[in-house]
Amino acid sequence: MTATKPVTACVLIIGNEVLSGRTQDVNLKFLGENLNAIGIRVTEARIIADDEATIIDILNECRPAHDYVFTTGGIGPTHDDITSASIAKAFGVELVRHPDALALLMRHYRPEDVNEARLKMADVPAGATLVHNPVSSAPGFRMGNVFVLAGVPEIMRAMFDGIKHELAGGPPILSRSLIATAPEGALALPFGELQKQYPDLDMGSYPFQRLGRVGVSLVLRGTDPGRMTEAMEKLKAIVRDLGVEPEDEDGKP
Amino acid sequence: MTATKPVTACVLIIGNEVLSGRTQDVNLKFLGENLNAIGIRVTEARIIADDEATIIDILNECRPAHDYVFTTGGIGPTHDDITSASIAKAFGVELVRHPDALALLMRHYRPEDVNEARLKMADVPAGATLVHNPVSSAPGFRMGNVFVLAGVPEIMRAMFDGIKHELAGGPPILSRSLIATAPEGALALPFGELQKQYPDLDMGSYPFQRLGRVGVSLVLRGTDPGRMTEAMEKLKAIVRDLGVEPEDEDGKP
Repeated sequence: MTATKPVTACVLIIGNEVLSGRTQDVNLKFLGENLNAIGIRVTEARIIADDEATIIDILNECRPAHDYVFTTGGIGPTHDDITSASIAKAFGVELVRHPDALALLMRHYRPEDVNEARLKMADVPAGATLVHNPVSSAPGFRMGNVFVLAGVPEIMRAMFDGIKHELAGGPPILSRSLIATAPEGALALPFGELQKQYPDLDMGSYPFQRLGRVGVSLVLRGTDPGRMTEAMEKLKAIVRDLGVEPEDEDGKP
Repeated sequence: MTATKPVTACVLIIGNEVLSGRTQDVNLKFLGENLNAIGIRVTEARIIADDEATIIDILNECRPAHDYVFTTGGIGPTHDDITSASIAKAFGVELVRHPDALALLMRHYRPEDVNEARLKMADVPAGATLVHNPVSSAPGFRMGNVFVLAGVPEIMRAMFDGIKHELAGGPPILSRSLIATAPEGALALPFGELQKQYPDLDMGSYPFQRLGRVGVSLVLRGTDPGRMTEAMEKLKAIVRDLGVEPEDEDGKP
């Protein structure tokens, strides 16, 4: 075990449509999993309105508090796409038309389809570097420790693949879990004792009712494979003490 | 149009498993839609860790800023279920064993299955009123303007059905939308002009690529049915001007 400070990230999901329930966000799950894999913990996520003052305030609150901030949404061509302009204001810089972004868009559209709304997608805060969009060319950007990504999941994922080599994480955050077809309340006390023995691991318990079965998924998370294996064996023993055979949930035999 | 202040809510999703990407949250979508239907706008949502200091700070930041706060998650029997105790601390009151909650749990479990972990689910902040759980008996609670609900979606939904009559909303927030099989960039300018004409409505544009079709879902939201219908007709005209027939997305003929 090392006592290095974990590398953390905040995810800002920008969009009225997520707050209203019209759109089911799926970007947080993707970012949470993929950042964990490279040793970055998402410790906070916020869903915020398409509102300039809100975006500025929350971005400026989050960016000094985390190693990285990832935003999704609001970088398209319509009037409700105000993320780029708001981020420029949050950094106190001008919004400028990036020549490389402009060139990308001019290549993507036929000349008769170029209009001011589409060209707006080439506007980024002064000093930003572009994030490649292999799906629909309109780029995202990086400004300091803030990565500004699209809201459309396929585009966001493709953008993330292009920037992940720029991210400096710690050791990958491992997750191991098992299923016990036992009620959570019966496991709670010994599971809590196990957590006390392994303060370096994060242990969670998630009850479910599926196909008429009542059970609980018990999850261990941490960075030390040896400690994880050791705790997992003890967890299996706890489940067996209840007269239940633990089932593997990690797809391993 | 009336200029009454909108009734707002903040949703706090409490759980490491959502931040790590292990669990896909679906509670925000349900709460967003169902609160809108009774005239309450979710203007902010936060996903926060199972960490006492974090829960206290964020709850105390959100509860004076909104008419209502809804929390989901962290009210079960295990060591990582710290929502109730954290909320008691946020309100500066003791955590007490509620006699009605205790009676519910004692009825639910066989005597030999009662243990301290399960009884913990009867602990609520002093002064809280219970929120009925028709699924698994362990109740949620209301403390001031804060409603503390389960994280398991089926239980959260059943709890919400039981408390919604206690909520005082404004006029229902209506949503109308259409699909245009046209690229967003072609619609952006006239759609932005329409938004300027109807500042009382919230207009959003959500591009999609589905089954090889490129299109955009155009959404109007507001509380005045007459204004909504009027703006919707103008929006259809904008789409038809592009040579595209707007498709209904509201399931109405």
